Amino acid sequence: MLTQTDKANDLANRFGNSATEGGEFAPGGIPVSEIAKEYGSPFYLYHADMISDRVRRVREALGTEVAYSLKANPNLAVCSLIAQAGAGGEVASSGELIVARAAGFAPEDIVFAGPAKTDEELRMSVDEGIHAVNVESLGEIERLAAIAEEAGKTIGVGIRINPTAQLMGSGMRMGGTVGQFGIDQADLAEAVEKVLSHESLVMRGVHVYTATQVFEVDPLLEHCRNIFDIALEAADHAGHALEMIDFGGGFGVPYFEKTSEFDLDRFGEGLKEIVSGYRSDSRLEGCRFLFELGRYLVADAGVYVTRVVDVKETRGKTFAVTDGGMNHHLTATGNMGQVFRKAYPILNLTRTDGAVPEEGVAVAGPCCTPLDSFGNNIPLAAPEVGDLIGVFYSGAYGYSASNLGFLSHPSPAEVLLHNGEALLLRAGGKPEDVLNGQKALTRS
Amino acid sequence: MLTQTDKANDLANRFGNSATEGGEFAPGGIPVSEIAKEYGSPFYLYHADMISDRVRRVREALGTEVAYSLKANPNLAVCSLIAQAGAGGEVASSGELIVARAAGFAPEDIVFAGPAKTDEELRMSVDEGIHAVNVESLGEIERLAAIAEEAGKTIGVGIRINPTAQLMGSGMRMGGTVGQFGIDQADLAEAVEKVLSHESLVMRGVHVYTATQVFEVDPLLEHCRNIFDIALEAADHAGHALEMIDFGGGFGVPYFEKTSEFDLDRFGEGLKEIVSGYRSDSRLEGCRFLFELGRYLVADAGVYVTRVVDVKETRGKTFAVTDGGMNHHLTATGNMGQVFRKAYPILNLTRTDGAVPEEGVAVAGPCCTPLDSFGNNIPLAAPEVGDLIGVFYSGAYGYSASNLGFLSHPSPAEVLLHNGEALLLRAGGKPEDVLNGQKALTRS
Repeated sequence: MLTQTDKANDLANRFGNSATEGGEFAPGGIPVSEIAKEYGSPFYLYHADMISDRVRRVREALGTEVAYSLKANPNLAVCSLIAQAGAGGEVASSGELIVARAAGFAPEDIVFAGPAKTDEELRMSVDEGIHAVNVESLGEIERLAAIAEEAGKTIGVGIRINPTAQLMGSGMRMGGTVGQFGIDQADLAEAVEKVLSHESLVMRGVHVYTATQVFEVDPLLEHCRNIFDIALEAADHAGHALEMIDFGGGFGVPYFEKTSEFDLDRFGEGLKEIVSGYRSDSRLEGCRFLFELGRYLVADAGVYVTRVVDVKETRGKTFAVTDGGMNHHLTATGNMGQVFRKAYPILNLTRTDGAVPEEGVAVAGPCCTPLDSFGNNIPLAAPEVGDLIGVFYSGAYGYSASNLGFLSHPSPAEVLLHNGEALLLRAGGKPEDVLNGQKALTRS
Repeated sequence: MLTQTDKANDLANRFGNSATEGGEFAPGGIPVSEIAKEYGSPFYLYHADMISDRVRRVREALGTEVAYSLKANPNLAVCSLIAQAGAGGEVASSGELIVARAAGFAPEDIVFAGPAKTDEELRMSVDEGIHAVNVESLGEIERLAAIAEEAGKTIGVGIRINPTAQLMGSGMRMGGTVGQFGIDQADLAEAVEKVLSHESLVMRGVHVYTATQVFEVDPLLEHCRNIFDIALEAADHAGHALEMIDFGGGFGVPYFEKTSEFDLDRFGEGLKEIVSGYRSDSRLEGCRFLFELGRYLVADAGVYVTRVVDVKETRGKTFAVTDGGMNHHLTATGNMGQVFRKAYPILNLTRTDGAVPEEGVAVAGPCCTPLDSFGNNIPLAAPEVGDLIGVFYSGAYGYSASNLGFLSHPSPAEVLLHNGEALLLRAGGKPEDVLNGQKALTRS
């Protein structure tokens, strides 16, 4: 099993690192300090080819369609790369739908999920003519039908089912349990009937998403079999063949110690076997099968880069304090629930070949709270003020998932390595941005 | 001890609630639905008088200066109210310093703390001529001295000390332990000597901040005594009287069940007694005593208002799903570390006098993760689609502490109740804002 340092070095290599003589990280041959000099730091760096290659590899391994869950990283260029690589899009807000369309996802390749879709969001889905709104309650079916009818249009519907069976062994559950997601499997017949009762709704199929950060292949395959059975039940209720089964996603990313890669090939083989067993069923004739994947497509293709502002020794412990922390990368500091803890694979990018102190280094961000820490015992080459630190596996749930306004530090830049160049995707913020959009109080 | 419902009703009353006949929350006589209609929802609502009154009351109870920690809520108008009520400002970033100045805090009433101040931030502090930079390491003293010297100016310095003694009984510790904050008490002499060795630095005094969410008065008083002793030791090393002791803050806010108000009056009485014992010491002649308070000044003066988009029953449980959640109010969903858990005091603002189902209601936000929940058993009047839900104690660590970009929903508005009017302080976002500042990828 790889150590966190092994993982970090492996990820650095996948970034096309050709370290300089001094041992500085140089993705695609560009020294990271040059990127920092040109665009400022901290910044997120994404690797275009890693993203495109991953999408193609996953599509091939699964033999199904893949819909990119934009929530993982709604950066416009990242989404464009994924669309170009042949994936569809799974959106969860009107904002994400806007990005998806701007990035080039075709409406017929977009599905919309989320437990609290507003009327405005449903209206936008109808107007864009997306493939399916995955409805999460009986009430949502009524709202969607009325909105489509008012618009004089039809809209595809997937019924998100909360299955009776629970996926075992997963990280975080979103189904098979009591929660805000989906319609109980016991209410499937009623839901199908409701959809069929509205001329403005087209019954596409079913959607099941029950867990995230899953590493175990066999329970996930069992889960897919279960989804096929739910789909066939839905087809029976509908009285016609289904057009879509959305299997959800949840393939794990091995951020932490003692986790290894999800075995995509073994899962893909098992899946193909299951699919071949159901494919000939007339109730699934012409049916599109799709997996929604976010984190799994982009996590490894991003690194967050921040600079060491201070190095201090206190009570025998070395602290590197950096100019970006939880405010830029909330998940990597372990502050998004319990599943995402510390520490991600981290490297001192300025001296990748430097000696690592045996007791490790504590890396803390700039925010005035002990929560702002990337980890207390990180195997990091002894840091000096001015060094750049890289937090790997930062392509998903980084920039967009972070509380960028916390403590009013400037937001980080977003940079893309593409065709041997470092392109600025979004400039870093300025301190004075904090006043943007604010109205002063006029004394009365 | 008050229940969460009692607390919510009490807070609603302090908002000047004169509920309509239908039982709708009407702060200052304005029905909350009218505010939502005018400015859109979700939104944060702040109460001007509650903020101003709290600042005055705290200053009176303590008999010291109060510096507002802008990190709690850096909204410009909120900061202006606090400045007008006679507090100084404690900033932790250049962004906060910009807000503080724009809000009317005088430079001589501003201190700057934070473990990773960049050179740019130190330069801005020198340029503005703030009262003190509270330095957190020996290295920072050197950097600050060089920057002030280069600018041909002098700058006040407070030495942030990590005391040997630990404050017991507090929520979250930031001192008396190994961490990124401050200079070890054992290194106090060296730090003072370093400050004195630079003509560009003016030794103002000491700063100690060691905990947050403290409810126990006696340990906190003991802690203040200890800070006086540290300060006198610093004065002895300096060979002159100190100009400032910054006692930190950390007074608790009783968000949760089984917590009651911090006893400000008892603390104030104890503090005045301690101060009178030290005040005559020549080493403290003319010394300014200040408490840094953020959360304690503004938490109760804010309510986050979000709308119910769906109500569903699943496996015997009622869920109200709202259009804003963790993305707008991260701390209230228990996703900022371990100290802030669920559930805050919450009311159905549309029917404050409605019957509360015995088993309570689960309130979930719009984000596709089970993390997005305000609580699973909230004593809430039975919700209907369209109802407005109010999350109280939301004046601190709300808007600015939240990952507003998560799932690309529009950001909430900020509204101020002021002189009987609801003033828009910052408009809510639009779905298309998600493209702001983003560069498209041009196909090569």
